[in-house]
Amino acid sequence: MPHIVIEYTPNLGALPFDAMLASTTQALSESPEVQDEADLKARVLRADHFRVGLADSGRGYLHVQLRILAGRTPEAKKDLSRRVADALRGHLDALPPGLQAYLSVEVVDMDRGSYTKVRLA
Amino acid sequence: MPHIVIEYTPNLGALPFDAMLASTTQALSESPEVQDEADLKARVLRADHFRVGLADSGRGYLHVQLRILAGRTPEAKKDLSRRVADALRGHLDALPPGLQAYLSVEVVDMDRGSYTKVRLA
Amino acid sequence: MPHIVIEYTPNLGALPFDAMLASTTQALSESPEVQDEADLKARVLRADHFRVGLADSGRGYLHVQLRILAGRTPEAKKDLSRRVADALRGHLDALPPGLQAYLSVEVVDMDRGSYTKVRLA
Repeated sequence: MPHIVIEYTPNLGALPFDAMLASTTQALSESPEVQDEADLKARVLRADHFRVGLADSGRGYLHVQLRILAGRTPEAKKDLSRRVADALRGHLDALPPGLQAYLSVEVVDMDRGSYTKVRLA
Repeated sequence: MPHIVIEYTPNLGALPFDAMLASTTQALSESPEVQDEADLKARVLRADHFRVGLADSGRGYLHVQLRILAGRTPEAKKDLSRRVADALRGHLDALPPGLQAYLSVEVVDMDRGSYTKVRLA
Repeated sequence: MPHIVIEYTPNLGALPFDAMLASTTQALSESPEVQDEADLKARVLRADHFRVGLADSGRGYLHVQLRILAGRTPEAKKDLSRRVADALRGHLDALPPGLQAYLSVEVVDMDRGSYTKVRLA
């Protein structure tokens, strides 16, 4: 069930998204909270337009939502969040010079009782 | 107020999104929880990059967020979730052969007190 | 930390997104709830496909998620929501004639304990 949604601003240069997603799902699959690696559904959404605060340029970011079924402990959620941040940071050391860039990770509880999952094919 | 957000991986072949959205809003409009059909705001977001678990290929998915104002019973939320899944499944029987594909539906409570809605034109 | 995510249907004509985002971050930066303007991370996501209720055409919308760290009062959340709506409305007075268009703003609490933020460069 964990969904990993990465949103990013397109001023970060060419990012190795395939490697970033592979590292992230690998790191999460090693968590005791994840039962089945095939539940790890990751995706990337590119921002059409963006802005950081009051600056017209020179800033960018990636933001990750990790959406998990509710019920984890605060410690488990913190650990999952850190796994995602650590997995991504390793791929983000060649950003355009002079850019003020941020990475943030947010853990979202999904309502368990109304979650529907279907195998299509 | 219900927002329907469908995110999908682009390896599922050509999907009939217009028909999928029409079926989904139709099914939801028939729920006693929906007062005004014009409140049903559906949209589709395409993932630029994606990954499912530890597999480099051969897997895909659609994930739906149904965002409703808080206050529904667990039963009502489960029913809404199932309406969405059933409406979409009817359009997903011709996926690329050999693909391991999933559909999931998540119901999200939106904070009622701070929700703003404006008619623009 | 506030994340501002604007999703929109592409039938609203050419929208001045840069000005819309500038007004929004300006209005939010003036709130006592926002400590550092550089925390205001705004982005725009375009819907590939969309539908409003049972109508095949003639309707469109923008929906904003304002994602803030949990702990604000209901009044503060309502004020933040209204700031976003007011900032955007000023730029939305030239929509295509005959279109039935909506703007909605939703405030989402983010889990504070598991939120990770890293300065990359």
